[in-house]
Formats: sequence, structure tokens, C-alpha cells
Amino acid sequence: MAEISSLGEFGLIDMLTKDFKSVNTSTIKGVGDDCAILDHEGKRTLVTTDLLLEGIHFDLTYVPLKHLGYKAVVVNLSDVYAMNGTPRQITVSLGISKRFTVEHINELYSGIYAACERYGVDLVGGDTSASVTGLIISVTCIGEASEKDIVRRDGARDTDLVCVSGDLGAAYMGLQLLERERVASAGMKDFQPDFAGKEYILERQLKPEARRDVIEELRSLGIHPTAMLDVSDGLSSELLHICKQSNVGCRIYEERIPIDYQTATMAEELNMNLVTAAMNGGEDYELLFTVPLTDLSKVELMKTARLMGRITKPELGAYLVTRDEAELEIKAQGWNAFHP
Amino acid sequence: MAEISSLGEFGLIDMLTKDFKSVNTSTIKGVGDDCAILDHEGKRTLVTTDLLLEGIHFDLTYVPLKHLGYKAVVVNLSDVYAMNGTPRQITVSLGISKRFTVEHINELYSGIYAACERYGVDLVGGDTSASVTGLIISVTCIGEASEKDIVRRDGARDTDLVCVSGDLGAAYMGLQLLERERVASAGMKDFQPDFAGKEYILERQLKPEARRDVIEELRSLGIHPTAMLDVSDGLSSELLHICKQSNVGCRIYEERIPIDYQTATMAEELNMNLVTAAMNGGEDYELLFTVPLTDLSKVELMKTARLMGRITKPELGAYLVTRDEAELEIKAQGWNAFHP
Repeated sequence: MAEISSLGEFGLIDMLTKDFKSVNTSTIKGVGDDCAILDHEGKRTLVTTDLLLEGIHFDLTYVPLKHLGYKAVVVNLSDVYAMNGTPRQITVSLGISKRFTVEHINELYSGIYAACERYGVDLVGGDTSASVTGLIISVTCIGEASEKDIVRRDGARDTDLVCVSGDLGAAYMGLQLLERERVASAGMKDFQPDFAGKEYILERQLKPEARRDVIEELRSLGIHPTAMLDVSDGLSSELLHICKQSNVGCRIYEERIPIDYQTATMAEELNMNLVTAAMNGGEDYELLFTVPLTDLSKVELMKTARLMGRITKPELGAYLVTRDEAELEIKAQGWNAFHP
Repeated sequence: MAEISSLGEFGLIDMLTKDFKSVNTSTIKGVGDDCAILDHEGKRTLVTTDLLLEGIHFDLTYVPLKHLGYKAVVVNLSDVYAMNGTPRQITVSLGISKRFTVEHINELYSGIYAACERYGVDLVGGDTSASVTGLIISVTCIGEASEKDIVRRDGARDTDLVCVSGDLGAAYMGLQLLERERVASAGMKDFQPDFAGKEYILERQLKPEARRDVIEELRSLGIHPTAMLDVSDGLSSELLHICKQSNVGCRIYEERIPIDYQTATMAEELNMNLVTAAMNGGEDYELLFTVPLTDLSKVELMKTARLMGRITKPELGAYLVTRDEAELEIKAQGWNAFHP
């Protein structure tokens, strides 16, 4: 008998789905990207889903329910934006154990609705049930895009530029901070955690946003990425997805990795390697994308994203080029739900 | 603080969704029917989702994983057929605790794929993660229908006929049988449960089918129901949904409730009330629908469904007419996931 952790999430999904053949002409793309792609009279429908489990994906000792509801929606919207689509509808299913009251669930929904309102998305259905232990949240998002607009993971080509929005590693350092304060406060009443000067990394962990603004800026500048995905499992893991699915290699420059000041300060305080946090931290929900070299001047105009590397031929592999010009092979050490 | 069980599932959903307003023109119908209805260039997209939790919705001591996978898909397809639509795609998200091996998950997926193959549905995505305890299955189904074909719950009118497919109460009696054998076998090795002559009720519980054949027969006879839904929570509960949403009453005739011989035998063996089981058992996944009185002769030709009552003015209420012509008010005593 094989342990599931021996395969990891992607190995498990590969194994389970590799032999499945679609039968409907409206199924353009199934498993293997941020969203499935469905055809409806020329318009494409995008579908994506995420399952969030208490004790695995979130810890209610430091995550307010409203933030959790907001984040549960945002992580799905992020997948639709990562295909260059527009999210339109969501369904939300909940499993709720006995320790939750109606007020708790209202609080959770206030966050769900806040995200719906901000991103112009409709809640159109769901399923609600008791659970034996803990809170279970399953969100599915339906989006739309025209065929020509959709950006997959498999379109990166040799000489393309690699870009990323925002900054990386902050959500991960926010989680480390929350975890440290949780341990420090164990058993204490009226413990006041000290979060001064660390608001940004906390917000990145507790209330991430989907980068609709990046999609809008790309459109306004006339940039059509050749490949794109959102950074949910960590930059390393996402870069390797692009390299594998596009059959290319890449060079990422350490000095070009965008990192916020608070992220750096927190890493130093906790004596953690900053580049490792930025490369493998996860939950950034930034957009990682590639553009043709001819778009260099346009990319340099972007306010929401920056150049961080280039795509190479596949035989050159995927490497991080350090400040002292050493080349470190990029490995997926991303957050793995089977090794929490 | 209010206990969630004080509201029940429908009360909770009502409370959570009553103030939400859709913003997208493609959102035709959100919460409150078997599926949401989305508009894509005139074609309607249907979306429905179900969350199945170990210890609440299924017990792996007597449900084989393959059957569970099959059923998890079928219950979603049933919701699409209940709108007179055609299911096209599903997503499947899993939460998996440590006691499950890769072989277990393959077994579950073999059932998922068997259902996909039988009903011509594509698996297009999902999310897979560890869980702290037990197995969690979240399935979302996307279907399609033309606008004119869609049947909602709110179209029943005074004098319409009430019809139901197949027979009722069998899945519930199958569950009672499994439960009895589980208790009887507790602590015994090599216990051989006696299921002879009870195959039908077991299959109804363990491997239900979605009634595509009923939809096909309705079409071939040129019958367009005025309201329809699938019987998942029990006939009483579903009848009240139609009455409430269509603003009508109904009379259902006890002698017209379709019940299989094995269901009746099992109820007698267990000393349970047969009509209660048929009215409130749940998990039948039959189609309950109403048709105009003028379709009476067509309905009488149906092989998959039968007439069981009629729609009345709302002030006449919803009543079961017994064999001795007493009238019993129909109350929703359906299976409630908050009182498992």
C-alpha cells in the first residue's frame, strides 16, 4: 500500500487523471491549469475550485472568520485572473462542526460577501452540512474569457521574459509571525501580541487580494502574456510548472526578486533565509507571467509587475542566479498539503 | 449565540443569502434551486455542488469506496437533470486523512470515472489536500440547457398534476439494513451479513442512478413539466419546496406513492412505518415534477413515472390523503444534515 504523501498532491492528481478522456466538445481543457476551460458558443467558461480545511489550511486561533471567508473567495478569483479571465460567479459549500454558532457563520459570510462585492462576483449556490470536526470550506469559481484572451501555462518560449507582480514571501513571513505569537501566548490570558510595524506581512497572510489590477494594466499596455499562473504554492513550484508545461528552462535573478522591507525584517528577526522564503513561501497570490522579448519596453512601464528573469531552451534547466553569479537549481519545495 | 441546528440547513442558507444581490448579467438564477443558472450567449449554464463528509453523509464501514465515488457524482448529475438540463463537466475536490492509501483513492476514483463514463460527463478539475480526520468529497457539476427547456421549482400552478419517477423509500430502508448489519457484526470476525432478497434496497442506497431516462421519456412524449426537482431530502421536503416556491398547495394520495416490494418487506421486518419511510426517507434521487392537467393522457403513457397527486390553491395547504381518506398535513421531516 502506498502512502499518499509519497506522491504529493501533483503526483496524486497526475495519477488519478492521466487516463481520463473528455467526451464533451464543450470541454476545451480539463485538469492541469489554474482553471478548466469550457466552450459556450465561442465564449470560454473558466472553472476552478479550492478546498480549505481547518487544521490544514487555516488555524482559527489566529485567523478571524471574516478574513477566512474573504481569503477563501480570493484564492479562487486569483486562479481565474491567472488565465486572464474575469470571475463572475462562485459557489460556497460549508461543513460546520458543533462548536460554530450562527454568529460565527455570519462572520464568515461577511468576508465572503466583502470579496464578492469588491470583485464583482455573484454567489450562486452551495451546500451546507454539519461536520464531525472542524470547518470545511469548498469554493468553486466560474469565470469567462474570450478564446483569444486566455493565457495558459504552456505558452512560454525561449527568450521570453519572466515577470512577477507585487512582492514575494510576505504571506509566509506573516504566517511565521502569527505562529510565533500563538506559541508565545499559549495559556496566557489577555496576551497582547506585538504586531507594530508588521501590518503588511500580516495583511498579506490574512487578507490577500487577487491581482485584477495586474490584468488590467497588462491590457492597458497591450501586453498579452505567453504563459501565466498565480503564485499560490511558492515561486519555485510555479516556475517549474511553466518550465514543464511549456517545455522550456529559465534563469531567475536573485537581485530581481521583489521583497518587501517588512518581509526582510521579519526573516532577519526569525533568523530565516530570506530568498528561501521568497522562492518557496507560498500564498502570495501574485501573478507570474512570461512575455515575448519584444515587449521589454512595455514591461518596463508596468507599475504592478517587474522583470525577474528569462526563459531558456529546456536543456538549460531552471536556475536561480545569485548575486555572486552562482547558479542554484530551482526545486519545488513549495507548500505541500500532504506535508503540512 | 444561536445553535446552527436551530435554523436547519435551509434556514441557515436563507439567512446567509437573502440579502445578496447579483451584479453580473450572466447570473440568471443564484441560490434556491437545484442549480444556479448562468447565461452564456443564450445557452444556459447550470452549476450545482455537493459536499459529502465522512461520518455525516457516509460510513465507510459499509460503503465501498468505489460506490461512494459513483454516488458523489450521481447526486450532482441528478440536480442538473432536475432542471431538465444535460450535465457536461464535474470538478472533484478531496480532503484525505492519513489512513487512506493511494489504492483507496484509486478505488474512489474508479467509481467517479464509472459515473462520468455512464453519463457522458468530463472531469475537468479539482483540488486535493490532506485532512485532519476522515474523507471529504466536494463535487461541482456544470451542465447546459437552452432557456426554453429549463424547469425550475416555481412554475407549478393550481390543477397541475404531481408525478414522481421510480419508487420511494428504498434507499432509506437500504441504509437501515446496512446499519442493522453493522451493529450485528460489531466485534465479530468474518461476519457474513445476510442480504439475500434485499439487493434492490442495497443498490438504491449504495449505487443510486440519476434519472436521465425520465428526462428522455418526458422529451419523447412532448411533456414539459411546470416544476421539477430531485428527491434527495425526502418526498415531503421536496413537495413543500414546490408548494412554497410556486405558491400553491397539493394533495398527494397515499395509495399512489410508488413503493417497491423489498422496501415494504424491510419496513415490516424492522417494524417501521412504510409511508413515513417513503415520504421522508431521502436519497431516492427520483424526479418529482408537475405537469399541466392537459398532459394527463401523455403522463399515463410514461413508463418511468406515475401520477401521485395534484396541485391546489395555496390556501388549501399541502396534505397527504390516506387510504381511508383522512388528510394528514405534509411536514418536512426530511433528512437534515444538522441532525444526523
